[in-house]
Amino acid sequence: MWSPERKAGSIPSWPVVAGLRLYCHASLESPVTRSASPPPLVPVPLTADVFAPFGDVIEADQARSHLINEGRTRRFHALATSAPGEGGEAILSIFRGTPWPSPVTVRMLERHPLASQAFVPMERHSWLVVVADAPRADACRCFLARGDQGIQIGRGIWHHPLLVLQPLQDFLVVDRAGAGNNLEEVWFPDGESVTLAAV
Amino acid sequence: MWSPERKAGSIPSWPVVAGLRLYCHASLESPVTRSASPPPLVPVPLTADVFAPFGDVIEADQARSHLINEGRTRRFHALATSAPGEGGEAILSIFRGTPWPSPVTVRMLERHPLASQAFVPMERHSWLVVVADAPRADACRCFLARGDQGIQIGRGIWHHPLLVLQPLQDFLVVDRAGAGNNLEEVWFPDGESVTLAAV
Repeated sequence: MWSPERKAGSIPSWPVVAGLRLYCHASLESPVTRSASPPPLVPVPLTADVFAPFGDVIEADQARSHLINEGRTRRFHALATSAPGEGGEAILSIFRGTPWPSPVTVRMLERHPLASQAFVPMERHSWLVVVADAPRADACRCFLARGDQGIQIGRGIWHHPLLVLQPLQDFLVVDRAGAGNNLEEVWFPDGESVTLAAV
Repeated sequence: MWSPERKAGSIPSWPVVAGLRLYCHASLESPVTRSASPPPLVPVPLTADVFAPFGDVIEADQARSHLINEGRTRRFHALATSAPGEGGEAILSIFRGTPWPSPVTVRMLERHPLASQAFVPMERHSWLVVVADAPRADACRCFLARGDQGIQIGRGIWHHPLLVLQPLQDFLVVDRAGAGNNLEEVWFPDGESVTLAAV
């Protein structure tokens, strides 16, 4: 199956013209199996570069650290700046994630129009990140985060709720408390979905 | 050796009149061994109640959680609110801690007069927290934090730099970026110190 994510080092993307992509996809299968859903998404390794359009990767990066505390502590400084938005405060919560049924099928996305939202694992297990530049199945991108990588999703960026690979995994979450509606959810129309390939 | 921390369930504290404490301590020993340093601090388990004068404990607490994400995630909500202070922003950094020489001897404390500072383990190892209501050896309190417990130290609270028990342990830190001097350090006078009992 065609999968740009398999090209190591490239920035994966779906062709921007959805109709063309669907046509190409359908041309490989019988008309009976033609569907509005794209092929399975193969998670690609999370890096700061590939994630840049969506937010920050929070990870130890020797290039931007310095020693403090009489040399006992290395500070990887300001990997992200919380953006709780006008009238908001940055709050710290714990999200205890459990897995979605396998194979994971993405049928909706959400976004927080008022504030950023950071997720940092409190246990060193790999996990998955699904983001998109639009609330459509064919716009989804999937990243495999190491257990020592957190992210901060930018304000207004579409993403799937927390996706863990263990029976249970805790994350520190930094997001907003404050007035206003900070949650939008969009279910894909016509039962459209995209399935995540197993990792 | 007298140690209020050994009384399970109590809130440990040193007598507030330092002169009296030192007199009592010295009375148990020969004049030759009389010293300005208090007896070793025995770490006591970190709980929200005992830590309340100094800040917040960031830990999963069933009493204040709710399910989100179609029941796949439990949110332990707003365990702390970042206080980056006037003109400041909450930034997310990673602190990579290594141990101090054993036995750990506390000779100084620091505080951040402009902002709160949160520490959340990214690996599940126990660690130590030393805080005080004044920058003196006999004011220090020591808490043993579980690997699933973080803290947010309140603005202006005296504390010792990060104390880990493993060769290396990473923490997510949420504190301030912004103008002004946000660090005060005080070394105890006359070589005064307090040693932490082994855990």
